[in-house]
Amino acid sequence: MDNFRFYSPTEFIFGRDTQKETGKMTANYGGVKVLVVYGGQSAEKSGLVKQVTDSLDNNKISYCILKGVQPNPTDDRVYEGIGMALKEGVNFILAVGGGSVIDTAKAIALGAVYDGDFWDFFCGKGTPSAALPVGVVLTIPAAGSEASASSVITKINGLHKRSCRTNLIRPRFAIMNPELTMTLPWFQTACGITDMLCHIYERYFSNTPAQLVNAYSEAIMRDIMDQALTLKLDGNNYDARADIMWASTIAHNGLCGVGKREDWATHFLEHEVSALYNVVHGAGLACIAPAWLKFVAKRNPDMVWRFAVNVMSVDPSGLDTEHIIEEGINLLKDFYHDLGLTTSLTELVGKEPDIDALVESLHKNLGDMIGSYVPLSIDDCREIYQLAL
Amino acid sequence: MDNFRFYSPTEFIFGRDTQKETGKMTANYGGVKVLVVYGGQSAEKSGLVKQVTDSLDNNKISYCILKGVQPNPTDDRVYEGIGMALKEGVNFILAVGGGSVIDTAKAIALGAVYDGDFWDFFCGKGTPSAALPVGVVLTIPAAGSEASASSVITKINGLHKRSCRTNLIRPRFAIMNPELTMTLPWFQTACGITDMLCHIYERYFSNTPAQLVNAYSEAIMRDIMDQALTLKLDGNNYDARADIMWASTIAHNGLCGVGKREDWATHFLEHEVSALYNVVHGAGLACIAPAWLKFVAKRNPDMVWRFAVNVMSVDPSGLDTEHIIEEGINLLKDFYHDLGLTTSLTELVGKEPDIDALVESLHKNLGDMIGSYVPLSIDDCREIYQLAL
Repeated sequence: MDNFRFYSPTEFIFGRDTQKETGKMTANYGGVKVLVVYGGQSAEKSGLVKQVTDSLDNNKISYCILKGVQPNPTDDRVYEGIGMALKEGVNFILAVGGGSVIDTAKAIALGAVYDGDFWDFFCGKGTPSAALPVGVVLTIPAAGSEASASSVITKINGLHKRSCRTNLIRPRFAIMNPELTMTLPWFQTACGITDMLCHIYERYFSNTPAQLVNAYSEAIMRDIMDQALTLKLDGNNYDARADIMWASTIAHNGLCGVGKREDWATHFLEHEVSALYNVVHGAGLACIAPAWLKFVAKRNPDMVWRFAVNVMSVDPSGLDTEHIIEEGINLLKDFYHDLGLTTSLTELVGKEPDIDALVESLHKNLGDMIGSYVPLSIDDCREIYQLAL
Repeated sequence: MDNFRFYSPTEFIFGRDTQKETGKMTANYGGVKVLVVYGGQSAEKSGLVKQVTDSLDNNKISYCILKGVQPNPTDDRVYEGIGMALKEGVNFILAVGGGSVIDTAKAIALGAVYDGDFWDFFCGKGTPSAALPVGVVLTIPAAGSEASASSVITKINGLHKRSCRTNLIRPRFAIMNPELTMTLPWFQTACGITDMLCHIYERYFSNTPAQLVNAYSEAIMRDIMDQALTLKLDGNNYDARADIMWASTIAHNGLCGVGKREDWATHFLEHEVSALYNVVHGAGLACIAPAWLKFVAKRNPDMVWRFAVNVMSVDPSGLDTEHIIEEGINLLKDFYHDLGLTTSLTELVGKEPDIDALVESLHKNLGDMIGSYVPLSIDDCREIYQLAL
């Protein structure tokens, strides 16, 4: 096990009706004037926005609203939010939504207390030294942003999808009511599940010995897959919704990566796809992850074998390594298909994607090599995109 | 899954040589004048105390020292520490040791900013509203106090062992170097292992449905047992020491209890034994836990069956429930014996313990009923003590 730091200071308020505690929690963490950030009309129609703002009113907290954040959130909304925060004298950012909304809120929190352009922190030009506090009412279990130190934003000019990572933007609190996720379209539930699984893959596939962390990571991955299939049959199963929601958080708060060198190549490969074709991140991962596994297993089979046996439950008796791995990857693809997702990039994008453009952007954003379980050259990445077609 | 709150804000600095970061971390959390609390001579002889105080010196942090904290820590040391903290104008308490030292540091942190008697918070007479910040350099993986909101102190007058629970005393940081645990006497390593396992039992044996939490709790318990046996053969195995150390933390930071009704009867039953006979807490648990399991399995077998199969790896095929459970408990006792521990209270105490006295004190401290997986009357508790003889 390598040396590590683990810091997950977010206070989680989990369970039925917990959105009614939003005002109290915001006040606990010093919120006086709040910018409420959310996405589309679903949060209004469901009554959630009203419940949240009522709760702020009850705690005598004033607020202004930024709505209309889209999936694969873009810099324009961040600039708009920073402008509102400055104009209104906001001292707290409250995200009501999933990863896109939270990432937008985090970027606003950084930009609102910075003299320069917030994008400096996403393109490596600057290191943040302060941020407004952020709170979350989570509606989509997927990105894990409610517990993470990261924000991912796409710059519209050039379609650069880049991330910023700093403890300053870890949410102070996250309110998580699994009932709120019951009205999600199935496609969003499914894409969230692929995303949280991939947050564990990126840490699991590592060359660092990590018996304990691997064991609990496998247990979490198996449970996500099991409860995903339960939800496919019964989307209102509270305990399955609750497991999926809590799993999304611990998949990405660092717990599954302690003491390990992480990889993240699958995410990097996918970010180019969703930036260029505006597909849903989780849907892109369902195409990239099996292709990445197939590619890396040739050079470094050990953890892929272990994944096949311990997570996908391939019975290894009588099979050689190659067939165990092949069977494990096929079962993973079957799982994605059971969720109703494609594992073909061509099908996802609606045409054969422009691999040259994907590879060129990847190279521009991340240099010559990506990943660590198997370090990938740009030509390797090209081959993975081809395997994913 | 029940509604829950999860809050574990401690910053963990884990790995080789990390004790050298003590001064920097103390400064990060505002420490200017520090009370360093530790136990016996081992921390001095090993050079750890010097490394820690050098690190404070390097960061221009002044300090005073309270040493001599014993296992099953007592109120006299707490009063002494509070007196020193007030006299010296201390603004930070630094614990260098295991659970007893950390619990003493936490109690001092509460008492130093309270006008009344710190014991008020342990006997239910008062609720704390403030505490000095606490930092930890952990030397014994066991109690999980480095990540918990609890402190357990014994009042010498009457031998009352009582606990106080408040987020105010959660350590700001915990420095955890597995190498520091390599010089522990084996008995202490073994007792730490029984303690961390029992922190998971108390949460695992619950009537709340919790598929995800049960799955990762089982993975952690299996790994603790596996790495314990590795350490028995090779106490200098770094990766096994690291797994055991990290497991001790996540066994007791709340992660294994989220959304579940917890039990804690085994701890309550043991606390009376260690208070009356001054045995090591973990050694007492190795006697109580199998007896408790045997008793509760008669009334509520489900989770005991699951423990036998999923943690103790009993093959259930061809066995009825009763025999699966019996085999699971026998394997658990074998495990404790493999660690070199007794599972007999009579052997542990050196004579037949005074069950009437244990039961009377339990009744006085906790009332008519304890536990929740199977609520236990005082007569039930008497029977469990008898099963543990």
